[in-house]
Amino acid sequence: SSFVEYSAENEFPIQNIPWGIFSVDGSAPRVGSRIGDFVVDVSALSEFFTGPALSGKTSVFSEDSLNTFMGMGFAAWHEAREVLQKLLSKGSELDKQAGLKAKVLIPVSQVTMHIPAKIGDYTDFYSSLDHATNVGTMFRGKDNALMPNWKYLPVGYHGRSSSVFVTGQDVVRPTGQKRPKDDEPPVFGPCALLDFELEFAFFTGPGNKIGEPIPIAKAHEHIFGTVLMNDWSARDIQKWEYVPLGPFLAKNFCTTISPWVVTMEALEPFKVANASQDPTPFDYLKHDDPYTFDINLFVSILGENMKQAGVVCKSNFKYMYWTMKQQLAHHTVTGCNTRPGDLMASGTISGPEQESFGSMLELSWRGSREVDIGEGQTRKFIKDGDTVSVTGYCQGDGYRVGFGDASGKVLPAVKF
Amino acid sequence: SSFVEYSAENEFPIQNIPWGIFSVDGSAPRVGSRIGDFVVDVSALSEFFTGPALSGKTSVFSEDSLNTFMGMGFAAWHEAREVLQKLLSKGSELDKQAGLKAKVLIPVSQVTMHIPAKIGDYTDFYSSLDHATNVGTMFRGKDNALMPNWKYLPVGYHGRSSSVFVTGQDVVRPTGQKRPKDDEPPVFGPCALLDFELEFAFFTGPGNKIGEPIPIAKAHEHIFGTVLMNDWSARDIQKWEYVPLGPFLAKNFCTTISPWVVTMEALEPFKVANASQDPTPFDYLKHDDPYTFDINLFVSILGENMKQAGVVCKSNFKYMYWTMKQQLAHHTVTGCNTRPGDLMASGTISGPEQESFGSMLELSWRGSREVDIGEGQTRKFIKDGDTVSVTGYCQGDGYRVGFGDASGKVLPAVKF
Ligand SMILES: [Ca+2]
Ligand SMILES: [Ca+2]
Ligand SMILES: [Mg+2]
Ligand SMILES: [Mg+2]
Ligand code: NI
Repeated sequence: SSFVEYSAENEFPIQNIPWGIFSVDGSAPRVGSRIGDFVVDVSALSEFFTGPALSGKTSVFSEDSLNTFMGMGFAAWHEAREVLQKLLSKGSELDKQAGLKAKVLIPVSQVTMHIPAKIGDYTDFYSSLDHATNVGTMFRGKDNALMPNWKYLPVGYHGRSSSVFVTGQDVVRPTGQKRPKDDEPPVFGPCALLDFELEFAFFTGPGNKIGEPIPIAKAHEHIFGTVLMNDWSARDIQKWEYVPLGPFLAKNFCTTISPWVVTMEALEPFKVANASQDPTPFDYLKHDDPYTFDINLFVSILGENMKQAGVVCKSNFKYMYWTMKQQLAHHTVTGCNTRPGDLMASGTISGPEQESFGSMLELSWRGSREVDIGEGQTRKFIKDGDTVSVTGYCQGDGYRVGFGDASGKVLPAVKF
Repeated sequence: SSFVEYSAENEFPIQNIPWGIFSVDGSAPRVGSRIGDFVVDVSALSEFFTGPALSGKTSVFSEDSLNTFMGMGFAAWHEAREVLQKLLSKGSELDKQAGLKAKVLIPVSQVTMHIPAKIGDYTDFYSSLDHATNVGTMFRGKDNALMPNWKYLPVGYHGRSSSVFVTGQDVVRPTGQKRPKDDEPPVFGPCALLDFELEFAFFTGPGNKIGEPIPIAKAHEHIFGTVLMNDWSARDIQKWEYVPLGPFLAKNFCTTISPWVVTMEALEPFKVANASQDPTPFDYLKHDDPYTFDINLFVSILGENMKQAGVVCKSNFKYMYWTMKQQLAHHTVTGCNTRPGDLMASGTISGPEQESFGSMLELSWRGSREVDIGEGQTRKFIKDGDTVSVTGYCQGDGYRVGFGDASGKVLPAVKF
């Protein structure tokens, strides 16, 4: 156990050891980890990384993004995790040095978190069966809910990487074209159906070369760690623009991620059986080992004048149909190259029960019912002044592994 | 006129002054321009950039990408162009210094060209009316060819930036899922309908902040320059995957651009009237000044055993329905942020005549007719060993402004 004290509900126990980029009072952003309510300044602990993978290479911890570290591969990630777990344990070399301890353990209240990686490309999948079924049922009826390709491949599309921000970024209500009545011309104005999408995303590790697909048996070597995500969505803009080339403006105005990247090693204890897949996937997508995770996921809404946020969604990452390994193998089967720090998201994660639906579109069933957010307030979609937060954790035996929130407040639309 | 001699057909006269990233014999990639058959090592000419925009900032020319220079804005771009035009003129300070001249003018045969910018995000539009009509007619019939949104907004989608390469990159035939018969399950294998898309793309200059749309009246300030593009496409993979979220694997395996970025100043003399637009666009898309350009565009195919490439397409950038300013204003109307070096492409550029169709899909009319590529050979789609080249130029009075080729050779699929 650690010399730092924290409660059993704290998301950052010694079992976690997540990675992030932080700064203090305008200092240079650099690599940090987290224990309890302290950020660990990893860049100030270089002397302790003496193992074969990291010795002589600790300048990666002074960089302003995790990309280089992500590109070093599992040996480095594992070594770094072990060093930090040891250093943060009771009676460690760090524990004995009060001066160093005071310097490298920084209260979270003093810290600004930054985007953890320079995201080369951001991809959004659509891998929750319940979500795809819900949306399909709404727009095409129950019998045609799933597209014919959905169970053969993890449907996905390229997203906008410039507008992926870490928690805390305000979200200006987007303006654009929409067509409220199908038999009338479109109109221009602020989005009236602003929504969240509860998602979970992974950052890639070492890249692959163009023309060289990542085989599914090696996909795990290319997955560094994970974050929570809110893929903000403008439903009315989306409906008018998305045929035939997919969502574009409806999702390019902000995507919020949590600040701490939780590694696959930290998630290992929370593996559960994969979804059973019928039809059997093609060989390039086939793997038998579990790579699905039991991660509790929540969305809450805090209205402008509310005292406490109301939880509107309780979902779980275990509801995914396609695994992250399948997503990555599929993404690269054409020979598409990845680079360290690419971000690949799950798509909206809904479960079978109404309370687990991962968007207002589903929770309000296309605006046909009010969703209770507490303190006498209800929503069909998101209002100006609302703060939407995605949170989540894995429940261990007496400890939790979490990510920090992915939150953002909605500001009124720009005037045109 | 320049002290460097070149023919009237040379793409790089003193009126051009394009920008690129080059290296010689493994030296550090840096900023270059081009005159006739010589690359100009701009990084070695720092002392001459003494104007207000560039003085003290010439280290941008020693960087390995144009992003910083792109971000400096028009004053810097214009100043740099003027300095180079003056230096490359007969009797200039450079002309008088034989030693310096020999050092900074490097024969193109000795040079390796690199990707001109680190592309933060790559967007592909779909802005040619003839192309959209052709494809729509093929798949939905003449009466439903255009989607209802097409004439209201420049349809676009996010592409994959990691796989944008400069001319010369080999293209491994992609493998993936496809469904040759609509009533049977999909199959897995090499793409059988490999295609090119003749496109033209612009690089963005100074970025805009998240939440702050670029007004159409200022859009030109954010457009740095242009390149030729081949958006390689796998038609069979695309058909099976693209509903409902758009093209994904079908276009992520390689996108080829030309090495030289031709500035808007160099294109200025080739402006022609914009397409007439009916319905009238919304205000945020409205501009009256011409921002359409007369640029001859060609695609040729060189089969493995052929002596000379056969031209299969003669098109022109003037056939565009939506202008680059409209594309950029639309892209950011939601508040989406751009960064210097984002790449935004036109979509396949087809004209009204069959010889101007910008893809094999259209030229072979969905594989229903053979396309003559010369030397007794024909194609419906692209074969292994074929080299596809996009070329193009503006015809001035006694001179041409060009881009260099965007070429790639197709290699056989990976074995699974
Ligand atoms: Ca999504
Ligand atoms: Ca295209
Ligand atoms: Mg998004
Ligand atoms: Mg492409
Ligand atoms: Ni170990």
